Amino acid sequence: MNYPISIRNLIECYKKLPGIGEKTAERLALATLTMDKDIIDLFSKSISDVKSKVKRCQKCNHLSEDDLCEICKQKGRDQKTICVVEDPKNVVIFEKVGTYKGLYFVLDGLISPLDGINPEDIKINDLLERIEKEKIEEVIIAVKPSIEGETTALYISKILKGLPVKVTRIAHGVPLGVDMEYIDAMTLELALENRQDVS
Amino acid sequence: MNYPISIRNLIECYKKLPGIGEKTAERLALATLTMDKDIIDLFSKSISDVKSKVKRCQKCNHLSEDDLCEICKQKGRDQKTICVVEDPKNVVIFEKVGTYKGLYFVLDGLISPLDGINPEDIKINDLLERIEKEKIEEVIIAVKPSIEGETTALYISKILKGLPVKVTRIAHGVPLGVDMEYIDAMTLELALENRQDVS
Repeated sequence: MNYPISIRNLIECYKKLPGIGEKTAERLALATLTMDKDIIDLFSKSISDVKSKVKRCQKCNHLSEDDLCEICKQKGRDQKTICVVEDPKNVVIFEKVGTYKGLYFVLDGLISPLDGINPEDIKINDLLERIEKEKIEEVIIAVKPSIEGETTALYISKILKGLPVKVTRIAHGVPLGVDMEYIDAMTLELALENRQDVS
Repeated sequence: MNYPISIRNLIECYKKLPGIGEKTAERLALATLTMDKDIIDLFSKSISDVKSKVKRCQKCNHLSEDDLCEICKQKGRDQKTICVVEDPKNVVIFEKVGTYKGLYFVLDGLISPLDGINPEDIKINDLLERIEKEKIEEVIIAVKPSIEGETTALYISKILKGLPVKVTRIAHGVPLGVDMEYIDAMTLELALENRQDVS
C-alpha cells in the first residue's frame, strides 16, 4: 500500500478491532488524519490509558481505574443486593435504566463447557465468597436466556442453595412495544409459563 | 455512563470517526481493552504520528512523511506522464492495479460550486505549474464520472488547451464481470458512445 508508514501502521491497528475490515480501516485511518490536534492527543492517550489504567473493581469485578469502581464507591446504594451480570457492558445497561439501587457482580462471561469455560473461569468462587462475607440478602441473576445463560443461572442457584440468601432471576418474556407476531416461540412459551396473576 | 474516565474518553474519540455511532464506539473501546500491549503502543503512537508526521508530497500532493512521497521518489517511473486523481485513496487504488508507471497529481477534491469548492481550492494551479515546469507530455484525468468529476475534468482540459500536452481521460463504460442488466442507463449510453472499432 502506497501510504506513509504511520498510516499503514494505523490501518493495521484499526483492522485488529472487531468488525473492521481492510476498507473500513483505510477509511478510518484517512479520517483520523483530518481530526483536530486536541482530539488526536486525547485519542492517543486514551488508547494507552485504557490498557495501563483500567483494571477490575476488587469488589464487583466491573471495570475501574481504582481498587473500587464508581458504583461500589457510591454511598446510599443497597449493600445487601447483588445483580449478577455477564460482562461490564451489562452493568452500564442496567445503570442507564437507573432504577436499580443495589450493587453488581460482573462474571467473566458465562459457563460454556463446549468452549472450555467452567465455573472457576468466570469468578463464581469470588461471588460466593462475597455473598457469604457481606451477608448478601438477595442475588438477582441477570444473564441472557441462552443455553450458556441458563447453565450459569442454574449453577449459581445450585451453589447458593442452603445459604441464607434469596436468589431471583430477572423476568424473561415479551418485550414492550413489539408486535406479538415477531416474538419467537421459545419466548412466548416462557412468557406463558411465567404468567402473573392480575385478578 | 458507568465506565472509568479513560474508557469514556476513548468512546468519545471513536465516535468522532465517520460511521461510528454510540454503540459501535462502546464495542470498539471495550475491544481495545483486550488488545495486546504492543498493539496498543503501536495504535496510540500511530494516531499521534499520522497527525504530526504525515504531510503532503511537494510534487504530487499525495500523503507523505517526507518532502517527496514514495512514488515520486521511485526511480524508473515515467516522469512525463501525470495521472490526476481526486484524493490520496485513489493513488493507492491505481497502485494496487500495478500497471501504471507514470506519476500522479492528487487534487484536494473536485470542483463543486454548490459546495463552494472552486478550482483554486483543489490545487489546480499547482498542477498547471508542474505541467509547465516539468514539461509533462500526457495528463491522464482519472476522476469519477459524477457531476463534480465532469466539471473538474472539463476545467482541467480547458486550461491545458494550447499547452504542448496531451490530455486524456480514463475510459468509462461497462465494468468486467457484471451482468448487463445491473448497469445503469447513463453508463450504457457512455459505453455506446465510446464504442471501439474492433473490425
